[in-house]
Amino acid sequence: MSKINIDEIRARKITDSFDRQAMMQGFGAKITAISEGGVTLSAPIQPHALQQHGFVHAGLTFALGDSAAGYAALTMMPDDAEVMTAEMKINLLAPATGEQLIARGRVIKPGRRLFVTAADVYALKGETETHVAILQGTMVPV
Amino acid sequence: MSKINIDEIRARKITDSFDRQAMMQGFGAKITAISEGGVTLSAPIQPHALQQHGFVHAGLTFALGDSAAGYAALTMMPDDAEVMTAEMKINLLAPATGEQLIARGRVIKPGRRLFVTAADVYALKGETETHVAILQGTMVPV
Amino acid sequence: MSKINIDEIRARKITDSFDRQAMMQGFGAKITAISEGGVTLSAPIQPHALQQHGFVHAGLTFALGDSAAGYAALTMMPDDAEVMTAEMKINLLAPATGEQLIARGRVIKPGRRLFVTAADVYALKGETETHVAILQGTMVPV
Amino acid sequence: MSKINIDEIRARKITDSFDRQAMMQGFGAKITAISEGGVTLSAPIQPHALQQHGFVHAGLTFALGDSAAGYAALTMMPDDAEVMTAEMKINLLAPATGEQLIARGRVIKPGRRLFVTAADVYALKGETETHVAILQGTMVPV
Repeated sequence: MSKINIDEIRARKITDSFDRQAMMQGFGAKITAISEGGVTLSAPIQPHALQQHGFVHAGLTFALGDSAAGYAALTMMPDDAEVMTAEMKINLLAPATGEQLIARGRVIKPGRRLFVTAADVYALKGETETHVAILQGTMVPV
Repeated sequence: MSKINIDEIRARKITDSFDRQAMMQGFGAKITAISEGGVTLSAPIQPHALQQHGFVHAGLTFALGDSAAGYAALTMMPDDAEVMTAEMKINLLAPATGEQLIARGRVIKPGRRLFVTAADVYALKGETETHVAILQGTMVPV
Repeated sequence: MSKINIDEIRARKITDSFDRQAMMQGFGAKITAISEGGVTLSAPIQPHALQQHGFVHAGLTFALGDSAAGYAALTMMPDDAEVMTAEMKINLLAPATGEQLIARGRVIKPGRRLFVTAADVYALKGETETHVAILQGTMVPV
Repeated sequence: MSKINIDEIRARKITDSFDRQAMMQGFGAKITAISEGGVTLSAPIQPHALQQHGFVHAGLTFALGDSAAGYAALTMMPDDAEVMTAEMKINLLAPATGEQLIARGRVIKPGRRLFVTAADVYALKGETETHVAILQGTMVPV
């Protein structure tokens, strides 16, 4: 995992929280990079993540993008805060197929009560990365 | 499963498509009602569907609501069409906890190229049904 | 204006706030009904509210729906609070044309920090009311 | 107006369409830049564009961002196509105040039936540009 501009304690808080997300674990998702205001996740594309056409289910694309955005927000929240999604919107750009799903979340605007966040999700097939979804939404510290 | 105002062949098309959604199967989701323009899904709340606070992961709440909305649209699409989500937005109303998650999808406006849809998601804990999310989005026939 | 289940002071607060919205005034918008958790607005469809095809500009449809949702939230906020939109999503259902635009806003879920709201917008042409847009979004007390 | 990577005829189509948007004209909005897949608009912040707190009404922020995104899509659509908004979501980042509102729209993903677009809106006060809103939505050729 790459860590840029973020101290060890804060990075540990993010990974500990992520490790307790049973659903993310069930999909084999991992944090691959953390920086101040940005988190990258990846997950293998497995049979149990597909929909009826053999593409990744929009639910997993959403879950990975939403988690990346949420943890990006958590990097900038007070030490004792946890993060919850208030609302999130996804636009799907292309069917997701291949070996790996990658989500890059970032903070657009931090705040005391609301964090506006965004995420991009990509599908990796061989050497080709396809942009499959964009997400925009609001995270709240709890 | 309750079927209202929908013929047997159309209902079969919906259930066959749903049965091929590996991710929905993995979460134990079932269709519980189909009508013209409306589909209800339910899924047990299981350990592998949770996030770090022990509530249902927003990804599953989204996936169930999105699927209910998509299949609601499919009830009104041409026989040879399948359905894909173009975009979807979710507002989370309350943490989801209990035994069962229920999603009721409906068509707001059918169209030749775009279907505007909505869904409500509820968590059932004992006798109490809590409204946990609303979704609004666009489905396309493919 | 119809007032249902709402006291005079609260209704006055809403109308006073609305009267200070220069943009709403510029479009001739009026409050036509207030209840606890619901506000209806209407505006004449005038030449300066149109886009390039002669239909109502999505900006006005949005503005009216957003205002109806915001004031619906304000009916349930503390006396000294004002309301601001945190985020809002609109799906357009049909081109808006006719004499009058009507927006019905409602609170889906009140909260201390966030109010989830929705609105429906209709265009009135003669006796025919066409459903032209649905909105879903978040209001915050300030 | 700056024109980059776009031929004269296409640029003329965009400006002609924009000039027929009565609502944009009423707010004094202008196209300030056009490129393949990108359009920038600006509008003076005038008294009739305000809401009850003296900030720019979310309706105008939305209208300007939505128009910038729509015209960005139109730069990549067939010659005989016009553009309509199917759906759009806005997250407001900060109150908009100052002399000028600027919206930069761009195409995220062009398509035959759907264009996924985004826009950023800024308020210019003296030398300071404040990021006031982000938009994400779908445009359709008609």
